[in-house]
Amino acid sequence: MYMRTLIRDLKENIEKEVVIKGWVDVARNQGKVAFFDFRDRTGKVQGVVFGKPELLEVASRLKQEWVVSVTGTVHVRPEKMVNAKVQNGDIELEITALTILAEAEALPFDMSLEGYNLDLTTELDHRALTLRHPRLQAIFKVQSVIIDSFREFMKSQEFFEFQAPSITPATAEGGAEVFQVNYFDKKAYLTQSPQLYKQIVMTAFERVFSVNKVFRAEPSATTRHITEIVSLDAEMGFIDTWRDVRDMSQETVRFILKKLDETCAQELTLLNATLPIMLEDTPTMSLTEAQELIFTKTGRDVRGEKDLNPEDERALCDIIKTDTGSDFVYVFGYPTRQKPFYVFPNPEKPEFNEGVDLLCRGIEWLSGGRRINDYAQLLDHVEKWKMDPSAIEMFLEAFRYGVPPEGGFAFGAERMTMQILGLKNIREATMFPRDMNRIDMLLAKNEDDAN
Amino acid sequence: MYMRTLIRDLKENIEKEVVIKGWVDVARNQGKVAFFDFRDRTGKVQGVVFGKPELLEVASRLKQEWVVSVTGTVHVRPEKMVNAKVQNGDIELEITALTILAEAEALPFDMSLEGYNLDLTTELDHRALTLRHPRLQAIFKVQSVIIDSFREFMKSQEFFEFQAPSITPATAEGGAEVFQVNYFDKKAYLTQSPQLYKQIVMTAFERVFSVNKVFRAEPSATTRHITEIVSLDAEMGFIDTWRDVRDMSQETVRFILKKLDETCAQELTLLNATLPIMLEDTPTMSLTEAQELIFTKTGRDVRGEKDLNPEDERALCDIIKTDTGSDFVYVFGYPTRQKPFYVFPNPEKPEFNEGVDLLCRGIEWLSGGRRINDYAQLLDHVEKWKMDPSAIEMFLEAFRYGVPPEGGFAFGAERMTMQILGLKNIREATMFPRDMNRIDMLLAKNEDDAN
Repeated sequence: MYMRTLIRDLKENIEKEVVIKGWVDVARNQGKVAFFDFRDRTGKVQGVVFGKPELLEVASRLKQEWVVSVTGTVHVRPEKMVNAKVQNGDIELEITALTILAEAEALPFDMSLEGYNLDLTTELDHRALTLRHPRLQAIFKVQSVIIDSFREFMKSQEFFEFQAPSITPATAEGGAEVFQVNYFDKKAYLTQSPQLYKQIVMTAFERVFSVNKVFRAEPSATTRHITEIVSLDAEMGFIDTWRDVRDMSQETVRFILKKLDETCAQELTLLNATLPIMLEDTPTMSLTEAQELIFTKTGRDVRGEKDLNPEDERALCDIIKTDTGSDFVYVFGYPTRQKPFYVFPNPEKPEFNEGVDLLCRGIEWLSGGRRINDYAQLLDHVEKWKMDPSAIEMFLEAFRYGVPPEGGFAFGAERMTMQILGLKNIREATMFPRDMNRIDMLLAKNEDDAN
Repeated sequence: MYMRTLIRDLKENIEKEVVIKGWVDVARNQGKVAFFDFRDRTGKVQGVVFGKPELLEVASRLKQEWVVSVTGTVHVRPEKMVNAKVQNGDIELEITALTILAEAEALPFDMSLEGYNLDLTTELDHRALTLRHPRLQAIFKVQSVIIDSFREFMKSQEFFEFQAPSITPATAEGGAEVFQVNYFDKKAYLTQSPQLYKQIVMTAFERVFSVNKVFRAEPSATTRHITEIVSLDAEMGFIDTWRDVRDMSQETVRFILKKLDETCAQELTLLNATLPIMLEDTPTMSLTEAQELIFTKTGRDVRGEKDLNPEDERALCDIIKTDTGSDFVYVFGYPTRQKPFYVFPNPEKPEFNEGVDLLCRGIEWLSGGRRINDYAQLLDHVEKWKMDPSAIEMFLEAFRYGVPPEGGFAFGAERMTMQILGLKNIREATMFPRDMNRIDMLLAKNEDDAN
């Protein structure tokens, strides 16, 4: 018995006998000869059985998605049989023995690269099967690289990784869109953001990050909203200004794009996606300047509005792309009272804050800014925002004992995946998407035992 | 203005003027001279002010935990002033300028390395402050290395990282200890394990891992139970036997221990912890053999019991340690009907399964085993275990279409941290522990608005 050889390594074994293990990707039985494409996590290879009647009898039973252990000899194909377009198109496995590890039922739809054409509902209903499709595998490969390269960059900048909690005692940032948990005989909630926790941990470790779930009880089924999100969060102390936060977030995104470029070329090609262009220094302007620019260039007057609406975001990104070539633009300085209590107000214009968003290709990717670090100022905001200090006592305690000027940023892994790949629906970029109508399967419209 | 110099790098700046930023760790005002220990994330250094009356006036205001930016010149200390026992004990910063970045209130208790002595309840009530203590920082540094080295080893073995969901539609594994979420007008649950999801994703990616939260509505307040746990999960296809799972889990633990040894020497010393000893090949025996051994060595007859109880686990670990020097022991082969439906029964003795646990220092660290991959056998177990197939339809679909022999394992990051460090309570190894009585702060005994 041989050790398993991975399909990507077959070329190093020309004229040797090897064992591969994997799935039957395609089976073509031609009577006296049977051809197969076998698939494992490292790729595909063609196998052939001929001139061995007993083996052919077993082989002829094989169907798509059956799992097999195949012994065979690796041959270089004759020149006229070479297919330069596919992996291992210049070799072939002459099968000498075959063990069936698992059978499979007939597939309910076409799972081939070209023939796969499901609407999203069907795709999600069959997630357990459709995850085997190369297109979906490519999406989640890209997502895993986004998440892992976020961590890698954070660690390189000496950010400490912590585990943000999911269950919270109160809804500090308020909001109706929060899920309630029946916590023994009490109420608790699913976290909407690790914001206050990452600020607490920053006061002890200076630079912290977390990869964690956040939950939004979003009661509408849009293409951009899911209820369970992977949030990538960072917070850093000893900044001089909000621009340090902007710079760190810029280099984080740059690092992620570089990693995708280096490790996901094949996936990006398969998905027909191109990475956005980030300049050495990303164009950066205040909300007021952005609104002026939109007015000047489009004639649409949004000056004085409290935020950019989706149309504004698209217009601004288009203008910046045309003027500078950058797919990215930072917008800072939002109306202070429109944003959470912890955002730092501009000392020279306190009606505007030092929050900053990163837009790309017409949509917000990342949000952050400087936070209030002075305890007295924080208490003042808590009062003005009409918050209950006892609900955020642990957070306030951290700031009672000396906190440096600080800030941070956050972005959602699914939205970034969706935007980079040009997907139309965030559910495509979520392995097991949850929304008001679906948790794995569609939820029944009425449930007798619902509360 | 200088760039900030980190305290660990001061020795490279002898006789140069630098700026450090950090906290006042200790302030000793002696009239015409003031001494300070300053602290940043990289360490501590002594600073001194003398002969500068105006500066001394500012400096004399400084108190513990105030945040400062300090300009000064780095000097080598005279030989008789050198303290070889502490970091930077051979240098000193002569302060030339000082900016106060944030003030702090007087500390509510002694936060010094030697003087810190809080009961756990007080420590948790003040988590936002106690996280600054070196001992607590060491615990969470060790935990972050455990989690990160798990991921690093998994990636080195070509395991694909996926994001396991937290909200689930049903309680597949049954059990009362599940949290219910009010999901719009329906019911959902917090996941107790990513087991079925990791098996699904394994059928598409062969080897998968996830770092994810699991939730247990454990209605008792023991030293070993919390309600929100960081679970480290792995699942692999194309195994030959359950021993492949055992081997992979062994090398995972070995890698984690090696990383801790390489990167946490200082933390382990501070916490007075020694890493457990893992042999080249960890002693491995069936439950029946373990029970025989306990009977032979202790006279206590637990033969035929369905599982090892805590006393058995301690006895077995003691025996193995004495006999072999190993702190670890694997136990496999549990009564099939005592374990979940997906665990693979031993084909030769179907009343025992191929589940396997890893014990260390008297407690279970890790649990795993081979799973059923054959669809018909899985359906048979679903029926025998009296489960509702429609509640696990997505899981069953994966196995309908060809799944290789497979298995996996899981362990909790907090429990491993606790065990390695010899902590008495799992809450010490959890940054923001949740239990039936606490979510950050102690929960009120009665809540008017509870359901």
